[in-house]
Amino acid sequence: MSDLIDVLRAAVGAHHTLIDSLSMAPYLTDWRARYTGRALAVVKPADTQQVAAVVRACADAGVAMVPQGGNTGLCGGATPLSEGRSVVINLSRLNRIRTVDATNNALIAEAGCTLASVQDAAAAENRLFPLALASEGSCLIGGNVSTNAGGVQVLRYGNMRELVLGLEVVLPDGQVWDGLRALRKDNTGYDLKQLFIGAEGTLGVVTAAVLKLFPQPRARATAWIAVPSPDAAVALLGLLRDSCGDRVSAFEMVARSGLELVLHHIPGARAPLAGAHDWMVLLELTDTRDPDALDSALEGAIGAALESGVVLDAAIATSVAQAESLWGLRENISEAQKIEGLSIKHDISVPVSRVPEFLTRARAALTMMWPDVRIVAFGHIGDGNLHYNLSKPNALDNADFIARTAEVNRIVHDLTAELGGSISAEHGLGQLKRVESMRYKSDVEMDLMRAVKGAFDPRGLMNPGKVI
Amino acid sequence: MSDLIDVLRAAVGAHHTLIDSLSMAPYLTDWRARYTGRALAVVKPADTQQVAAVVRACADAGVAMVPQGGNTGLCGGATPLSEGRSVVINLSRLNRIRTVDATNNALIAEAGCTLASVQDAAAAENRLFPLALASEGSCLIGGNVSTNAGGVQVLRYGNMRELVLGLEVVLPDGQVWDGLRALRKDNTGYDLKQLFIGAEGTLGVVTAAVLKLFPQPRARATAWIAVPSPDAAVALLGLLRDSCGDRVSAFEMVARSGLELVLHHIPGARAPLAGAHDWMVLLELTDTRDPDALDSALEGAIGAALESGVVLDAAIATSVAQAESLWGLRENISEAQKIEGLSIKHDISVPVSRVPEFLTRARAALTMMWPDVRIVAFGHIGDGNLHYNLSKPNALDNADFIARTAEVNRIVHDLTAELGGSISAEHGLGQLKRVESMRYKSDVEMDLMRAVKGAFDPRGLMNPGKVI
Repeated sequence: MSDLIDVLRAAVGAHHTLIDSLSMAPYLTDWRARYTGRALAVVKPADTQQVAAVVRACADAGVAMVPQGGNTGLCGGATPLSEGRSVVINLSRLNRIRTVDATNNALIAEAGCTLASVQDAAAAENRLFPLALASEGSCLIGGNVSTNAGGVQVLRYGNMRELVLGLEVVLPDGQVWDGLRALRKDNTGYDLKQLFIGAEGTLGVVTAAVLKLFPQPRARATAWIAVPSPDAAVALLGLLRDSCGDRVSAFEMVARSGLELVLHHIPGARAPLAGAHDWMVLLELTDTRDPDALDSALEGAIGAALESGVVLDAAIATSVAQAESLWGLRENISEAQKIEGLSIKHDISVPVSRVPEFLTRARAALTMMWPDVRIVAFGHIGDGNLHYNLSKPNALDNADFIARTAEVNRIVHDLTAELGGSISAEHGLGQLKRVESMRYKSDVEMDLMRAVKGAFDPRGLMNPGKVI
Repeated sequence: MSDLIDVLRAAVGAHHTLIDSLSMAPYLTDWRARYTGRALAVVKPADTQQVAAVVRACADAGVAMVPQGGNTGLCGGATPLSEGRSVVINLSRLNRIRTVDATNNALIAEAGCTLASVQDAAAAENRLFPLALASEGSCLIGGNVSTNAGGVQVLRYGNMRELVLGLEVVLPDGQVWDGLRALRKDNTGYDLKQLFIGAEGTLGVVTAAVLKLFPQPRARATAWIAVPSPDAAVALLGLLRDSCGDRVSAFEMVARSGLELVLHHIPGARAPLAGAHDWMVLLELTDTRDPDALDSALEGAIGAALESGVVLDAAIATSVAQAESLWGLRENISEAQKIEGLSIKHDISVPVSRVPEFLTRARAALTMMWPDVRIVAFGHIGDGNLHYNLSKPNALDNADFIARTAEVNRIVHDLTAELGGSISAEHGLGQLKRVESMRYKSDVEMDLMRAVKGAFDPRGLMNPGKVI
């Protein structure tokens, strides 16, 4: 393999070709420290041509490649396997915003731009790039594309898939596909970019993307709302969309257990409502027009929902600081859960109309199996997407808790499938759910996925052991 | 082939297996009467299982298949070739709305439902299905999926691609892929449905689709506006989106030549503004809230644009009837052009920011080649999509006009490509632009498209001679 290393050094420079274990270490372990792999080298190319040279060199040597962005994924998709025979291609040096076309509402970002830097580049031209995630300061656009990232504004603006107009991709043989079209309409054949979006680097290396921009909202109204049940939360969503339409940009549900963890573990967190409630919603409306009209739209909708019993109580933010503190409660649930101890996490989606049934039946099945289980359910109920997590009961030790993961997954995932849902709504499959997902896909679907993989990467060199 | 006909009769019934030329004729000629093909048979299956049986029978016999919807396409994609060795699979009997889930904002429609019947099924549940086309009374949903249909509300709601949550497809070997998921988020592998959307039946037969629904607008404001130039039209779009955001649901540009044809040929058509203007815009805002607020938003935006010189004059509809008559002017351009005589049509898109440059340079090049050429440009400028048509000069006879088609296409399509555009924005490739599109695609892209086709339909039995 020393020949390959020489070629890689010639392609990207010795300084950006890491081969000793100390310098490679940060790139071989995922953010949650669940997966640690090994690699022949970690290379950090500076531009698309260098990526192509690296891919050609690996393809010539028959060596597998692992494309890597900000390494913030939750499923081990960007971490090499432990056999140590692959090269990690870290994209962080491809970090230029190539162009911003405010009139066309589009910009071209290289794969290594952080999501936050793309948001900033859009804002500098009075535009919005709406993808919003907890990791936005460190996740990279190439990773957002490759995992079809979701987040809190999908309800209004769609997933990453809906936000990408074009892609530049280095294919598994090192050829560059220039699909950087900035068009709203293009019906000249198969929409190839869709294959690379969400493929987690198993079909090629995304090096740049044309991203859609939107008008910048000028008004924002945020409320924390107690509802009597998940059914009422779904009904409230319907009422709000009926009256306020596209203004509804976020609609998150939080269970009492989640809020309590945040109040317990996060310094400065304060309860937004006087009473304790089993189910709460954090929602946000945005608009390009006058804030007063938006505030009264929200107040009107909540007032009507209070009268009909769909809402029990509500706190409407009256300042940006208040809105941020409400969002802090939501965004700190994962962190608070981590401080509390081990958890078994799920990232499921079902049709929005079936969320209440999912919650009722999952709780019944889990508590029958495990009476003192602690369920922390929260997430993007507006998209039917729940982070359905179990925290370790205090009385149990870690090993005994983790030992039950497969059993818990079976209950949660079987029910999800029965309700027409997905066992990975927004996090992807990576290493974590590759095998599990096959349980729920038909043979026909697996065959189609294998046909795609075989057509694009017949030698199986792109990110092996992930997705498929 | 009589064995195959027997199997087809057994599958769908003799009454729905057409083999004599008289009964097949309506299915062998496209709507514009530009293509007439031949076929072994036209079959009209009643449900997905019958479609699968037909496809298995054809695959067993090694016979090509042409999926067909409402036969309203403009590129001959659903018309068989003239060699007469294929079977047309007409989907019009698969015309059930299987379910409507208003809470999940989704419905399942079979391929043979008309677009209008899907709009009606959504409206019956107080929801909007936003796809809107001139042919909506006769085009079928399966065709809308297979051509990634666009239309006048793409600016706000996206193309068909963005409106499909899931698909059911009969694959080229007769297996049924059930991808009828009604989820907003699903990251469990490659998004296979994207391949069938816009594939014009070359990868399989779409038999049903899960479609996204939206809140029903309660307010609508429509205006016909004169602008000094295409640059001003683009600037007006920017101002409107900045102030009114997602409310801007349609933004169509009409050149003076187009309006004049309509006023000349369409009974009852009346000029919406007192003066004559070279460039006009028809725009629409919609909202779920109070109509008065929407009207004043529109009036405010137009008032500001008048002061800054971006707008010259404007007529705001004050009734539904007035709005409909403004839309009639726009929608009758194609019909008026047809009455006027022959035309050479283009369906191009460029980035919105480059529309003015496209118009200036295309006119300069065409008039240099052909001084008395008559350009009729109109279309979805909000998406960068222009129907850029040439009407026959009166002095020229038909044959001489048509003889210059290739020369005209070269000018229009080369310029489109130079500006980063698409030579088929919303109509697809079909037979009409299959070869022409290859001129503008890189070898890398054509290889990827062939790889997809080869992976899904290795024997080339699905709609041969179309797209690829």
